[in-house]
Amino acid sequence: MKLSQAFGSQKRMKIIFKFLILSLFWNFINANDSSAERIITSEDVQVNLDIVWICIATILVFFMKAGFIMVEIGFTRAKSAVNAIMKNMMDFAVSSIVFWAVGFGIMFGISNGLFGIEGFFLHDYAESRDPWLFAFWMYQLVFVSSTAAIVSGAMAERTRFSASLMFTAAMSSFIYPVFGSWVWGSFYHGDGWLEKLGFHDFAGSTVIHAIGGWAGLAGTIVLGPRSGKFRKDGTINPILGHNLPLAALGTLILWFGWYGFNAGNTLEGGSKIAQIMINTTLSGSAAAISGMITAWFKFNKPDVGMTLNGALSGLVAITAGCAHVEPLWAVIIGIIAGVIVVFSVLQFERLRIDDPVGAISVHGVCGVWGTLALGIFKTGEMFNIGNIGIQLLGSIIAFLWSFFVSYGIFSLIKKAIGLRVSEEEEYLGLDYSEHTAAAYPDFQITNIK
Amino acid sequence: MKLSQAFGSQKRMKIIFKFLILSLFWNFINANDSSAERIITSEDVQVNLDIVWICIATILVFFMKAGFIMVEIGFTRAKSAVNAIMKNMMDFAVSSIVFWAVGFGIMFGISNGLFGIEGFFLHDYAESRDPWLFAFWMYQLVFVSSTAAIVSGAMAERTRFSASLMFTAAMSSFIYPVFGSWVWGSFYHGDGWLEKLGFHDFAGSTVIHAIGGWAGLAGTIVLGPRSGKFRKDGTINPILGHNLPLAALGTLILWFGWYGFNAGNTLEGGSKIAQIMINTTLSGSAAAISGMITAWFKFNKPDVGMTLNGALSGLVAITAGCAHVEPLWAVIIGIIAGVIVVFSVLQFERLRIDDPVGAISVHGVCGVWGTLALGIFKTGEMFNIGNIGIQLLGSIIAFLWSFFVSYGIFSLIKKAIGLRVSEEEEYLGLDYSEHTAAAYPDFQITNIK
Amino acid sequence: MKLSQAFGSQKRMKIIFKFLILSLFWNFINANDSSAERIITSEDVQVNLDIVWICIATILVFFMKAGFIMVEIGFTRAKSAVNAIMKNMMDFAVSSIVFWAVGFGIMFGISNGLFGIEGFFLHDYAESRDPWLFAFWMYQLVFVSSTAAIVSGAMAERTRFSASLMFTAAMSSFIYPVFGSWVWGSFYHGDGWLEKLGFHDFAGSTVIHAIGGWAGLAGTIVLGPRSGKFRKDGTINPILGHNLPLAALGTLILWFGWYGFNAGNTLEGGSKIAQIMINTTLSGSAAAISGMITAWFKFNKPDVGMTLNGALSGLVAITAGCAHVEPLWAVIIGIIAGVIVVFSVLQFERLRIDDPVGAISVHGVCGVWGTLALGIFKTGEMFNIGNIGIQLLGSIIAFLWSFFVSYGIFSLIKKAIGLRVSEEEEYLGLDYSEHTAAAYPDFQITNIK
Repeated sequence: MKLSQAFGSQKRMKIIFKFLILSLFWNFINANDSSAERIITSEDVQVNLDIVWICIATILVFFMKAGFIMVEIGFTRAKSAVNAIMKNMMDFAVSSIVFWAVGFGIMFGISNGLFGIEGFFLHDYAESRDPWLFAFWMYQLVFVSSTAAIVSGAMAERTRFSASLMFTAAMSSFIYPVFGSWVWGSFYHGDGWLEKLGFHDFAGSTVIHAIGGWAGLAGTIVLGPRSGKFRKDGTINPILGHNLPLAALGTLILWFGWYGFNAGNTLEGGSKIAQIMINTTLSGSAAAISGMITAWFKFNKPDVGMTLNGALSGLVAITAGCAHVEPLWAVIIGIIAGVIVVFSVLQFERLRIDDPVGAISVHGVCGVWGTLALGIFKTGEMFNIGNIGIQLLGSIIAFLWSFFVSYGIFSLIKKAIGLRVSEEEEYLGLDYSEHTAAAYPDFQITNIK
Repeated sequence: MKLSQAFGSQKRMKIIFKFLILSLFWNFINANDSSAERIITSEDVQVNLDIVWICIATILVFFMKAGFIMVEIGFTRAKSAVNAIMKNMMDFAVSSIVFWAVGFGIMFGISNGLFGIEGFFLHDYAESRDPWLFAFWMYQLVFVSSTAAIVSGAMAERTRFSASLMFTAAMSSFIYPVFGSWVWGSFYHGDGWLEKLGFHDFAGSTVIHAIGGWAGLAGTIVLGPRSGKFRKDGTINPILGHNLPLAALGTLILWFGWYGFNAGNTLEGGSKIAQIMINTTLSGSAAAISGMITAWFKFNKPDVGMTLNGALSGLVAITAGCAHVEPLWAVIIGIIAGVIVVFSVLQFERLRIDDPVGAISVHGVCGVWGTLALGIFKTGEMFNIGNIGIQLLGSIIAFLWSFFVSYGIFSLIKKAIGLRVSEEEEYLGLDYSEHTAAAYPDFQITNIK
Repeated sequence: MKLSQAFGSQKRMKIIFKFLILSLFWNFINANDSSAERIITSEDVQVNLDIVWICIATILVFFMKAGFIMVEIGFTRAKSAVNAIMKNMMDFAVSSIVFWAVGFGIMFGISNGLFGIEGFFLHDYAESRDPWLFAFWMYQLVFVSSTAAIVSGAMAERTRFSASLMFTAAMSSFIYPVFGSWVWGSFYHGDGWLEKLGFHDFAGSTVIHAIGGWAGLAGTIVLGPRSGKFRKDGTINPILGHNLPLAALGTLILWFGWYGFNAGNTLEGGSKIAQIMINTTLSGSAAAISGMITAWFKFNKPDVGMTLNGALSGLVAITAGCAHVEPLWAVIIGIIAGVIVVFSVLQFERLRIDDPVGAISVHGVCGVWGTLALGIFKTGEMFNIGNIGIQLLGSIIAFLWSFFVSYGIFSLIKKAIGLRVSEEEEYLGLDYSEHTAAAYPDFQITNIK
């Protein structure tokens, strides 16, 4: 009786048990085959078009993985490049398996009030055999590892590889899905309590970017800065990224994928896609310009790092509101994001928080800005204090959830197996100490730097 | 009265003023929502499919930006890589904002005979709230920065960064849109005088590639060659590209995007796409082979630069005619383009014009060839002297417009702020002198070369 | 009379001659234009959607070319990078022209029992003017060069460039198309004898990957190992890949393209796409994890090469069955593939077969595993001995055909012009000896290593 109370009604319990039994052998393939013979209607074709569009958006979001890797490699040192590859490949591989096993169920299954408790191993709607659902499921999967990739960037060049694997499992199995269920989980069952309060986040400025950014902040605090980054005399040692062409390539791959990230969330092949792409493009462009100009004023030069991160900050900031603001406001949102990111990066450095790629500023801080901006500029409800308030509340809850849960998990990992490599291992580079590898053996006489 | 005469009728004036007032606050979002309830017809689904296809083509063309950057980086020296990133990122960012503000209006707005004079800030058909239009608008936007990217390649390694920013603004605000309005501007209003004469350019061999190539020619003439390129004894110093894997990657990214560039111009998700892709593939392939063979005869080796530029030349050449020639002619067009590009590159070197990436030959010369080739091989009208004549006329006008206007602007920039960095700055490299950066700091003992 | 017997009936002869005459001037363009005026039905829109989907899948598969290049460059030495570019660019260019000329006809034309004998130069169904057919044709074309790219990887760093060109022509003109006609050739005419026996290969674990892998095995045996790879004392010299970031990028580009490779083979924009993508993702992810873990046990470190090749092995293995197994089995198929690839790579090294990128293990061995796995795990017919037997038979025939025909061709090339560069040329590097080039001239003091 108690268990069934915890999980909901007895009927729900029965469903859960049925799933546990059915789960490994249901008819995944041949779904929809019974309808093959009937006449195809306009509605059928539209559903097929929706599926095609969601699948293409999925493929684009998948490719962002390459973007995250190239950005992390480009903005860090040659001696950590293999580690960046391994962490990000595993972010995707582990999060895919974990999200299949439990993450999707926690995020989109019928909720116990706090998180979903059915739909594991892709069995939630197996009986419906709905091909649209498989597309939706697949689309959700490719988002998961983005959160872990953001954390990976913030904690680059000093984290033990096995520790980062553990955190990835935690992130994709419950940190992200539980918060996700509060905002997007209502998609099927109306359980998302934050969304019910009126919190909006169209494509994930908060649900993905800020959640990832704040987990990265927790990680880098528990971890500490790279050795040599902050000198004893209080000055800051700029540790330069070793391959800026790859960082630029990564930024453009991310932007390319972002069209799937934002416009795919329509979940419909139709009228809203182009408008979302226009807003995404204008915000990213405006932020690249404003980031460059801000850096030009501050450093007296057009800085490449701030320009690339400027572009990304504009993309993060428009993610929440891309479907609900007009293009002029997309430009304004981007301009402000580009300014914010420069000051934020400098401020975190001043706080002696070492974030090699600027992930906390780009994804965390600008994720919050984008979430608030939707409250401020939403078409038809501009400058509505109530909206802004609930967006702020949601952002605070996202921070509290992601930062403190992550902080706890990182502290546990630190105690259990150690979060950070030794000083010597860091000096030799993670590629050598964690993977016995060198990224460019024909060029590196040694990978010590 | 005079103003209204200049701009057209009084009615047109009223429309313009209405746009200026309405422009910042119209209902961009929620377009088409009123139709959400009605039954979806086959025609509706086809429109949605058209939108999806145009948007995917847009995303592909966007990604060509990464291709342009990688090609420019790969074919130039390590000391200029950051500058290539910055120029190309800004080409896209600036041209997006400028094209939103004025470029689209000049190109596609109701014309005063010379260029469009309404439709600025995405307000041309705001009242129609037509989602197809937003897709069309977005698709046009991603083309703009290609022209600036071509110029950037031709002027690499010695142009002042702020000067290149200025030219990008000029290119995207009027050089490209004004010429574009003559050929493609008739799309809505029947105002394109060159198209009315019978000039055809399906996807932009002239409108985009030749316009970019001739502007690049003007720029490199005003600028002069890189120091050390042409020795006093008359010999030519080959300045090698520093990262050929990235040049190859860039070429393939461009090719990948080219399918969106060519097949997207159908503006319809349907029957013509595959045929266009077949022609594009065969021409690019044939040109890669003929470029390689030509270089093999000339230099006694299969040269990688000529092979990659060969492929690009075939893609440029088929762009005008991809929808209007049969595959056999696509192969022939490609073969000839691959031969032309090798001789053209050598000829420009002999003329002591320094084009680091071969952009003038690939985009300018082969853009003309492709434009003429459509006149020669057009299905059903092969070898029609009238057609060939008008294609030649259009190509000449494109040259005159782009070369001389660009020449004038570059001369103005030269006088105003200086077009070229100092000899010492060039020696140190633009990355250092313009951006205080190094592309590969872990590998470069110094970025002086 | 004899000729017509060889080619089939007189009627067939007439068709063939008609094609030879018509072939260069038929109405490729304007296909379907006659239907422009009639009312569009749901069926019409679905056909258009199918075309759009096939074309997008085509574009994704095309981009795998960049993936193959980056993987080959990344896993070999800096002195062979330009050669990897040239071989792979030419694989695509040559195979496109050859497949257009003869390959498609041999694979999909009406068969003489052993291979197709009509449909050359894209004229097979010219009269039907079917835009769907053009999409199908285009989609088939982009697959061809994958087989040659696999061979290129296995034979890297010591093969004469002109010899590799010759083999590419042989591969794309008959080795691949003839075998393909046995399995997929029945698409139009019911002639594929292996498919008639019950052999299934949805997207090409055997038809593409194993065929490529076994040809690569033949090539590397005829060629011998790279000098210095196997020492006289019996130990193995690990020759390290020189640019692991590009290898990782290449792996992710391949994965990205694989969604088009697998899900595109539905040839329909509709219900099965997402399910195939789910299986593809889960298998690739599981294999990346199991490959990493296996290597961790064997070498006591998480090895980047085995992780990347693990991911690829899972993608190869799910290719045959992606549309016909349930997700749980996709995970199992991937896990086993990741284990197999590690042991296979080590075993081939022990056999003193030098495969620089692991292509034989990834594509050959795991191609067989994937083909068998479909027999084992096919939904509704699991563990059916008959199915497994026929899958095994097909795999054996694929091996016999590809290995021995390739072996013969390589032997012929060896006699005719020499298959391998001289020892000195190999020492200097193929970039220098075959292309008078250096991939990274700003970094390489010399490209001798």
